[in-house]
Amino acid sequence: MKFTCSQQSLSKALNTVSKAVTSRTTIPILKGILLKASSDGTLTLSASDLDLSIEKKIDVNVEEEGSIVVLSKLFSDIIRKLPNEDILIEEKESNNVLIKTASSEFTIVGLAADEFPNISELEGQPETLSFDKEIFKDMVRKTSFAASIDESKGIIVGVLLEIEPDTVNMVALDGFRMAVAREPMKSAESTKIVVAAKILNEINKIVSEAEDEGDIQIMLSNKKAVILVETTKIVIRLLEGEFIKYKDIIPTQNQTKVEVGRAVLLESIERASLLAKEGKNNLIKLTIKNNLLTITSRSEEGNVKEEIVMEKTGEDLEIGFNSKYVIDVLKAVSDEQVLMEFNTSTTPCLVKPLIGNTFEYLILPVRIASNY
Amino acid sequence: MKFTCSQQSLSKALNTVSKAVTSRTTIPILKGILLKASSDGTLTLSASDLDLSIEKKIDVNVEEEGSIVVLSKLFSDIIRKLPNEDILIEEKESNNVLIKTASSEFTIVGLAADEFPNISELEGQPETLSFDKEIFKDMVRKTSFAASIDESKGIIVGVLLEIEPDTVNMVALDGFRMAVAREPMKSAESTKIVVAAKILNEINKIVSEAEDEGDIQIMLSNKKAVILVETTKIVIRLLEGEFIKYKDIIPTQNQTKVEVGRAVLLESIERASLLAKEGKNNLIKLTIKNNLLTITSRSEEGNVKEEIVMEKTGEDLEIGFNSKYVIDVLKAVSDEQVLMEFNTSTTPCLVKPLIGNTFEYLILPVRIASNY
Repeated sequence: MKFTCSQQSLSKALNTVSKAVTSRTTIPILKGILLKASSDGTLTLSASDLDLSIEKKIDVNVEEEGSIVVLSKLFSDIIRKLPNEDILIEEKESNNVLIKTASSEFTIVGLAADEFPNISELEGQPETLSFDKEIFKDMVRKTSFAASIDESKGIIVGVLLEIEPDTVNMVALDGFRMAVAREPMKSAESTKIVVAAKILNEINKIVSEAEDEGDIQIMLSNKKAVILVETTKIVIRLLEGEFIKYKDIIPTQNQTKVEVGRAVLLESIERASLLAKEGKNNLIKLTIKNNLLTITSRSEEGNVKEEIVMEKTGEDLEIGFNSKYVIDVLKAVSDEQVLMEFNTSTTPCLVKPLIGNTFEYLILPVRIASNY
Repeated sequence: MKFTCSQQSLSKALNTVSKAVTSRTTIPILKGILLKASSDGTLTLSASDLDLSIEKKIDVNVEEEGSIVVLSKLFSDIIRKLPNEDILIEEKESNNVLIKTASSEFTIVGLAADEFPNISELEGQPETLSFDKEIFKDMVRKTSFAASIDESKGIIVGVLLEIEPDTVNMVALDGFRMAVAREPMKSAESTKIVVAAKILNEINKIVSEAEDEGDIQIMLSNKKAVILVETTKIVIRLLEGEFIKYKDIIPTQNQTKVEVGRAVLLESIERASLLAKEGKNNLIKLTIKNNLLTITSRSEEGNVKEEIVMEKTGEDLEIGFNSKYVIDVLKAVSDEQVLMEFNTSTTPCLVKPLIGNTFEYLILPVRIASNY
């Protein structure tokens, strides 16, 4: 293997594929990036942690075909710190790799390419979806934070991607809150997949770094999906199992409805949570009375009362929350006003836009002592 | 105590004085900030960790004189997160403190002001120096990193500030390298003080945040110094003991002199140190031969050779360094070219500007095995 390429394009490609390299693996070859130079003048870079694999092609000057695995961190650090000029990369004996510019010469230890896991293609004719980049990014951002971060919890570490004839939905939940994002989209077939939230977050970074506007392509099979973002191919293992029937959980009848400014509510709750450290519960109390929303909280260090004018229909109510869950929701959306709907002080609160249903959040309340 | 003030000016003042609050103290009152409202319309904020005390005055509307201590972190967090409007602050019974705006109302637990340590003034007529802000900041930046961070090492955790009739020198060293910065300055008397490097770094932050150009004032006594930065008064405890006679260490005769580009040398050494992890020593070897400076390094992961064209007078030389010490020096200065002077492979290297002596750095070499 022998090729020359520009420092900038190689460094950028390494930044993308290294997102699939995990430092926590015990399998040495998975700390590496596979470099494959082909006679058609392309270098294919691949990395995989078995759940997530990323492959990217760049144009290089190939003098000699071949492939080798280099340590991701060391190789990326070297390439990033080289000046922006042409780099020669050449396989030497014993899997050594020479990296050479006008004034620098590195020889680093590589690994044989044949040990690298095969990033296999999907079989047959997979179903393909097109997704606008901005819509995809926004839906992931609105939902992935609500997935469980506890790996022992099974499928709820994932985000449900539900394709229906006229809409696409993303859903995540962790037992304390649920996030639903919806966008209109025409699809020939209905289908459901579940993808680990942390993988979706990595994909979102790659989508954010993409250079052009336009769509990403998602190809689905039974256990895998392939996502194409420009010249980057991402292969992900889907989570298996039945996702919670989330539509049954969303309350349709609510006694109390509150319309409130999102930014002012977010700031008030952030201030109130400065004194909401009791038992790590971040407990705040919302008192909905007439046209005033009052947020109170207290700890050994003091107490706080925040007042916000709002529009209300229905009954007055007192309800407690873990402030973190409310803050997460108010940060994930950008609407000027939001609608909060309540039934009782022990049933979940629903947060949604004034018009439509592009998002719906459910937040479980925390029981508050009668003397709080 | 009762006063109203603007959120912005209070938040800014808290940001300054809280630099003297240490979270690691076991004395509860030192986690606090003393607020003192006077009938002349000033609020004085004070904080101290006994080694460093900071006092700042701001204009407020005082309705009732008085003073109280509030917890630095909680009070600063609350004030920072309040909207930019007028804030009422009032002492209530049992040392409670009310913080009130149009829509927020906090009551936090305070501490009695009489427990707060007295930030005493200097006695008599202390000697006063004026220091241009930019020069002060630059000299601290050029030297403080070289002081020892090992608190058990005594006076070398400090930076020597040496006032001579025509120059001021700052000097720091840690046994492996030494940094000297010099600037012309007329002074009536010669004097020397030693200030802990970490205190100088905090002072540099305050100087950086100052709003106007101009001078800072330094007033010296035997064991203390007072530094005035605009309306901020900083009182520091000086380190006691004799600083190392640093002038005797600087070599005056050097066999080999190398003139080299600072940025290109810095980048080469940063790249070479990617492979310089052997025994945590960051070992790199510099080979000075004819007009080529070659930097080599190696580890189990591979090896590297960097070449830089330079101008040399004197003998060829091979010498080993801990790359961190060379990188620190090359980052601290901004000259386009620097002069490196060497005697043998076991004596310190001197780094200085091409012309003049506004800085001088000594770096101890590391012995390299003959087969390296």
